Amino acid sequence: MPSPVPELEIGRDQFVWEFSPNMAPVATVQPGAVIRVETNDCFHGQVTSEAITADIIDLSMVNAATGPIAVEGAEPGDSLLVELIEINPGTQGAAMIIEGWGQLIDQVKAPVTRIFRVEDGVVHMNDRVSFPTRPMVGVIGVATESETLANFHAGMHGGNLDNSLHGPGATVMLPVRQSGAMLAIGDMHAAMGDGEISGTGVEIGGDVLIRVNVLKKQQTRWPVTQLADSWFTHGVTTGDLQEAIRLACEEAARLLVDQWGFTMEDAFIFLSVAGDVGIAQSCHPCPGSVIARCRVPKISACPTPFKELASR
Amino acid sequence: MPSPVPELEIGRDQFVWEFSPNMAPVATVQPGAVIRVETNDCFHGQVTSEAITADIIDLSMVNAATGPIAVEGAEPGDSLLVELIEINPGTQGAAMIIEGWGQLIDQVKAPVTRIFRVEDGVVHMNDRVSFPTRPMVGVIGVATESETLANFHAGMHGGNLDNSLHGPGATVMLPVRQSGAMLAIGDMHAAMGDGEISGTGVEIGGDVLIRVNVLKKQQTRWPVTQLADSWFTHGVTTGDLQEAIRLACEEAARLLVDQWGFTMEDAFIFLSVAGDVGIAQSCHPCPGSVIARCRVPKISACPTPFKELASR
Repeated sequence: MPSPVPELEIGRDQFVWEFSPNMAPVATVQPGAVIRVETNDCFHGQVTSEAITADIIDLSMVNAATGPIAVEGAEPGDSLLVELIEINPGTQGAAMIIEGWGQLIDQVKAPVTRIFRVEDGVVHMNDRVSFPTRPMVGVIGVATESETLANFHAGMHGGNLDNSLHGPGATVMLPVRQSGAMLAIGDMHAAMGDGEISGTGVEIGGDVLIRVNVLKKQQTRWPVTQLADSWFTHGVTTGDLQEAIRLACEEAARLLVDQWGFTMEDAFIFLSVAGDVGIAQSCHPCPGSVIARCRVPKISACPTPFKELASR
Repeated sequence: MPSPVPELEIGRDQFVWEFSPNMAPVATVQPGAVIRVETNDCFHGQVTSEAITADIIDLSMVNAATGPIAVEGAEPGDSLLVELIEINPGTQGAAMIIEGWGQLIDQVKAPVTRIFRVEDGVVHMNDRVSFPTRPMVGVIGVATESETLANFHAGMHGGNLDNSLHGPGATVMLPVRQSGAMLAIGDMHAAMGDGEISGTGVEIGGDVLIRVNVLKKQQTRWPVTQLADSWFTHGVTTGDLQEAIRLACEEAARLLVDQWGFTMEDAFIFLSVAGDVGIAQSCHPCPGSVIARCRVPKISACPTPFKELASR
């Protein structure tokens, strides 16, 4: 199936470093619009060779997100639906070991940079180590309710969710908190493992083809994502992974109760026997967000997160 | 492909409640043996209706594991390879909400029991809610080095690993700590979600068809499992999930270094970009073990956890 033709392209020179309540759009589109968004790599082009390590770059310049894009008719209380149609990484990516970051930091020397070649759907780490790409976007978000959050962080607005499942075919539903939503996207990875234990995936620039839509008067607390066979919620904290899991499970259970008529007891049991708790981001120690997800299988009793989407 | 014919069947009346250093085998087999093992449900037949809740059963009688089976030639320092060929659940299962257990316990009334009908690969929760079975075994382990651990717990010997990926096709590699290994298996689930957030899956009796083998003089710290497309390590703690993740990642990195010639730095980066941290068990709060896993894709640079297995 050929990709839809975008009506708008937004270059990587149009970007923001943070999500806030007051974001000025670089473009305004109608619901249903298909848009091609160029993204910068998370290091903003600073890392071109393995000699360029975390200690000599400006780590405040991370995760530029292209946008913001205003979507007509998206109002507080609605959800913005962002369908990720294509994610096209460039040809060179970088990953890092950063002093003080990640589960294995005590066993390695830091800093280290590795450059990856990306070609024909394969990531080449070195002569011996190659693996298939799993392209995804780390940062996807909308204007916040009241706080200003650098793109390094995740929150109820989305932001740096770093969910490896945010690849082609996923539809990310973001709770709209400001008129027009103000969507921005960045931090592409040619591949990133669940947990991203060093804090970096194969960080790379590229372009993303998206379609935006609005779901009126339906909203979750945190972003919720649909895949072909399942949907899932997120939970975000500043460090407590069990609490992030609890938040994700709570949101999934609430949708099962409010949208699909489960009792809270049946929702709890159903998630225990058929749902899947997962980890998006658990680089630890690290100053970033900790992000869990709760996956719900699409069955006839709960085929979508929102009842209204079932008829679309 | 027809299933291999078992040379031995072990009934569900031959079981242990705990793993310890001194376990007397109920049978002894040669490496390569195919065995059918009947298993009890985790509640040991106590829960036959929804009126039977956690407060009125004996919760010390949980997770009976059928065995132990001695495997000739398995000696301390070796690994026991247990191939799960078939997992056949019975027709009725049960899940529970137990006072004080699980991420959503503050939002429900407890105790609650739900009975499930299991038929033709489908789990029926009620008239509306049905989903495909994902049969797996929660408890799989061998005799310990020195401690005695009730089957409620997991440890270096395996035990209650509660990993949803321990289904048909998985090969679980257990570090042998005593002559004969002393394998025991139980706690079948017709389905269990990653994390098992209430502490129960669809708890059910059934039978398991396995093949056992021995890998001489190769051993990991914790159990390691092979699937068709990946292999993964485990990390277990009594409550700290980040530490469980660290242990699982550390073991995966150590295998990449010792078996496959990665530097520790490259192993760390490779796991961050291509490995997947996951959760087996995170029922919280709960007095049980917390279990994380780290999945490594089977690529030419690391096609198996142990180099010697690559030629088998």
